[in-house]
Amino acid sequence: MSSAPTSRPELIADTALALLAERGMRGLTHRAVDEAAGLPLGSTSNHARTRAALLEAAVLRLAVRDAQVASAAGAPVPGPGAEGLAALLAPAMHHSVTEARDLTLARLELALEATRRPELRAVYDTAGRAFRDQLEVMLRAVGSAEPERHARALLAWCDGVLFHSVAGAASASPPSEAELRANALDVLRGMLGAGSGG
Amino acid sequence: MSSAPTSRPELIADTALALLAERGMRGLTHRAVDEAAGLPLGSTSNHARTRAALLEAAVLRLAVRDAQVASAAGAPVPGPGAEGLAALLAPAMHHSVTEARDLTLARLELALEATRRPELRAVYDTAGRAFRDQLEVMLRAVGSAEPERHARALLAWCDGVLFHSVAGAASASPPSEAELRANALDVLRGMLGAGSGG
Repeated sequence: MSSAPTSRPELIADTALALLAERGMRGLTHRAVDEAAGLPLGSTSNHARTRAALLEAAVLRLAVRDAQVASAAGAPVPGPGAEGLAALLAPAMHHSVTEARDLTLARLELALEATRRPELRAVYDTAGRAFRDQLEVMLRAVGSAEPERHARALLAWCDGVLFHSVAGAASASPPSEAELRANALDVLRGMLGAGSGG
Repeated sequence: MSSAPTSRPELIADTALALLAERGMRGLTHRAVDEAAGLPLGSTSNHARTRAALLEAAVLRLAVRDAQVASAAGAPVPGPGAEGLAALLAPAMHHSVTEARDLTLARLELALEATRRPELRAVYDTAGRAFRDQLEVMLRAVGSAEPERHARALLAWCDGVLFHSVAGAASASPPSEAELRANALDVLRGMLGAGSGG
């Protein structure tokens, strides 16, 4: 699904993301990236001098890969009501916890690390704001009376699906797309009131 | 809020949890626990020989501290309908993302590490199952037509609130108890159907 890296900086950042998923924060070192990417020792240090720079490169690459997936899917236009929006969210969430599980794990690792690194927090939050804004526009379109609060709540719901399904109690058997769609529909109907949805 | 450690094993496990919150998986070492707990070098290794044993001790201590909080609060009996259950969940979630933020961060670190350690996964999931079961009982009591699916979805919602509020986009300003209550009510009304709640 994701585009192959086309440059050494992209290869380094993609390898950092893969190592984060596979080995966690402890497993990510400049040397491990060199080895896993098949690059001469020192290549990663040359590109990202500090650990902070390496982590920042990983977060920025994550944002680029998100944007590529979104642009490949086309601009999201939900069908009418809660049903339409649930039908849009469920496959995206399902993809994130199955085929794109490793990228999701890397994202969660970086979010936790950002609690200790304000400079990483800023990069991470900027990259995430686009998705929150998109949710707010879609919630407005389907008739939410409180689109700002609902966008925050829906983003937290998405975070919950990701965390719960790849690292929490459901990590042994992630929810099916049908279950995610039913859950999203419950949440959206609750937000939009009894009369909404299909 | 949490009980003070009363034994050296408890002190070691509590210190491990505090280090996980403060420094992440990379910052947790046997030596760091000795130093942070003010114990002679080697004490932690003596108690938990391997890294796996130290992580397991931390997860088990987390379960004990959860049980102490739950037992101090008394058996949870929700008031009627969605309103009653939202009124029970909101303060517990709010506590977890404010006063108990560090314990929540440690929990999230351990959950991610459990993706790479099957033995830790087993301990973590067993400790979490009690909460899932409790949610299922409460959902049945307030009239859920699909208490098993709804309990899974509500647990994912709780995971989402925790992750989003301490490590995700809302970590700079965690939601108020009133906002969490409104969000929980939306979710529960969506699950229970239009006629439920207050």
